[in-house]
Amino acid sequence: MEWHAKPTGRQGGMAPATRPRALLVLAAWVLVSAAAATGQVPTSVEVPSSPLVLKSRGSFILGGESVRQTPAQLSSIFGRPLPEGGHVSVHQMFVEFMVPMTGDGVPVVMLHGATLTGKTYDTTPDGRMGWYEYFVRRGHPVYVPDQVSRGRSGVDVSVYNDVRAGARPASALANAFRQSDEINWTVFRFGPRVGTPFADQQFPTSAVGQLAKQAVPDFSASLPSPNPNVSLMASLGVRLEGAVLMGHSQTGALPLDAALADPSAAKALILVEPGGCRTKQFTDEQIAALAKIPILIVFGDHLETPTGMFGFSWQDAYEDCRAFIARVNASRGIAEMLYPPDMGIRGNSHMIMQDENNLQIADLILGWIARTTKGARQ
Amino acid sequence: MEWHAKPTGRQGGMAPATRPRALLVLAAWVLVSAAAATGQVPTSVEVPSSPLVLKSRGSFILGGESVRQTPAQLSSIFGRPLPEGGHVSVHQMFVEFMVPMTGDGVPVVMLHGATLTGKTYDTTPDGRMGWYEYFVRRGHPVYVPDQVSRGRSGVDVSVYNDVRAGARPASALANAFRQSDEINWTVFRFGPRVGTPFADQQFPTSAVGQLAKQAVPDFSASLPSPNPNVSLMASLGVRLEGAVLMGHSQTGALPLDAALADPSAAKALILVEPGGCRTKQFTDEQIAALAKIPILIVFGDHLETPTGMFGFSWQDAYEDCRAFIARVNASRGIAEMLYPPDMGIRGNSHMIMQDENNLQIADLILGWIARTTKGARQ
Repeated sequence: MEWHAKPTGRQGGMAPATRPRALLVLAAWVLVSAAAATGQVPTSVEVPSSPLVLKSRGSFILGGESVRQTPAQLSSIFGRPLPEGGHVSVHQMFVEFMVPMTGDGVPVVMLHGATLTGKTYDTTPDGRMGWYEYFVRRGHPVYVPDQVSRGRSGVDVSVYNDVRAGARPASALANAFRQSDEINWTVFRFGPRVGTPFADQQFPTSAVGQLAKQAVPDFSASLPSPNPNVSLMASLGVRLEGAVLMGHSQTGALPLDAALADPSAAKALILVEPGGCRTKQFTDEQIAALAKIPILIVFGDHLETPTGMFGFSWQDAYEDCRAFIARVNASRGIAEMLYPPDMGIRGNSHMIMQDENNLQIADLILGWIARTTKGARQ
Repeated sequence: MEWHAKPTGRQGGMAPATRPRALLVLAAWVLVSAAAATGQVPTSVEVPSSPLVLKSRGSFILGGESVRQTPAQLSSIFGRPLPEGGHVSVHQMFVEFMVPMTGDGVPVVMLHGATLTGKTYDTTPDGRMGWYEYFVRRGHPVYVPDQVSRGRSGVDVSVYNDVRAGARPASALANAFRQSDEINWTVFRFGPRVGTPFADQQFPTSAVGQLAKQAVPDFSASLPSPNPNVSLMASLGVRLEGAVLMGHSQTGALPLDAALADPSAAKALILVEPGGCRTKQFTDEQIAALAKIPILIVFGDHLETPTGMFGFSWQDAYEDCRAFIARVNASRGIAEMLYPPDMGIRGNSHMIMQDENNLQIADLILGWIARTTKGARQ
């Protein structure tokens, strides 16, 4: 599998990158990103036509462990090594939230995907309202975490500093990956090849440079096992007395794990563009447990686009999730696929919550939440 | 200078840590932090008595550079190395903001200090309203960045990944420091020694474990020179057509640099607990430029507390800033010190925006802003 589809659109075998193709990709990228290369300004964000009235808002921090680290692991201050170690907190989860003044919607937790933060659900790259604020305006308290090890949740740098101090080999450093703009173009399905959008593309590709600025290094590989994001998502749901748990991409299927960890955490589960649904990995008992919770799985358009990423295919992910839905429903579940092309809505990307029709998609999701959580345990 | 003051309060020479003292400090720490060791929950945050009405809110990302990185610098996805490099964005600044529906206050930019993020100004560790929301409720649009290289602004991990791949030596890793709870206790002036608060302490020390969870690694040393936080703070102020630029601790004096970079960025400067004011480093020309902008410098109480940190002294910082004020005012400036003990307000800590009387202090600052920016260029 090639990294980028060739300009002809043909997919070949695992060919080494060739110089001319690399230049072509680079040239295409420069063309696309030039308009959006500079940063944003305050007026980049649209002002809504009506005020937002909040009962409360703010942030809190879930979980975390206080661990004692060595002077080398804390590293130096003022360029001088520390004489003593001490305690720092690791593996906590920052959560921001807004609760609307009116409305009685069930709380919604929106967890982001790889190399991104909670910013995913806020103002879109081209300055429109994101799902975070929109769901609040539609009467739902909304909670937006940064995944543990990223953004305001922070990452444990004890190994980094041990390596820096020569106490551990460089190979001890955890994978900390970033997705290049070139990778994202096809993996996020903005178009068939870098720099070329689909004719019906819903992602605001003129602002793709702003999406790049939302990205941060992904230190997920530094996390302990089991992944604390699962238990924290579950405990947040429990504390909210049952919430709609939403994940995206890397965390697309995480709401399933959170619900299995504690079913009382979930009034409903929404899997947005998961990398797959792990259909065959669940036991019958687990499927029976998941069948008691309404589940919505959301995919955008152009799933057949070659991702260029190690044989990964969105079409495969979609088919797996369809099989998952069938398995859950065979167990008297209430799982459903929201696939906009079925309704004639075309061109949605992997970043569907940032697409130009993001609020249209939100309305479909909100309608589903209203239908399925009516009468859910309060 | 010792790391922690001895239990007797006596400060000695640079003595190596002794086992009994380390144990004593540890025991004290366990006692203090036990109550706050677990994470927060949604109900940890107080609900205000009146709604918050916003004209707009959201987030945007200032600056940033699109740079091409190698496959090794982007690191691996799905555990497989990348066949091609690509572009990522580095050195951008995430900014969240709220604009109130009513009020005509001048915009305020609140920049946080070392090892922290914009969370500094949001909900306090014990769940009370922070300055971010309070200033909005008092009619000011407020902008809260995460410093470049931290939180949602992200950090450039190309060197990290080069080291991981063996392409660069471990010594190429930039300092990434954390401040332990033990360091913060005395440096943030919560009390004379770890675990013992001052009798009149305003910081909610029962929630000190929550402050620990706000901390993230500080990758400032990875930044290019000049520090992009200065130019981005200046450009944000310019785009806001002049703002009150506030910094804290590590960035306490940064508003001075931002105003010198572009005087039109600043309607006023507020230096909260800066590590010093660099009084002697400014030229007469620079002082004359700063003298045209109202400047408020804020310090808490107990400045004489030995910090235990390499001879650093808050009293020295305070005295330096008093000298700075005198120098600016000798140049017909309008610089002022807000030192609460002068008004009989005792016990404020370094984290004054999170102290129990944080809104009392905010009112003093808001009053000063109203007085000094009246008639300022709009």
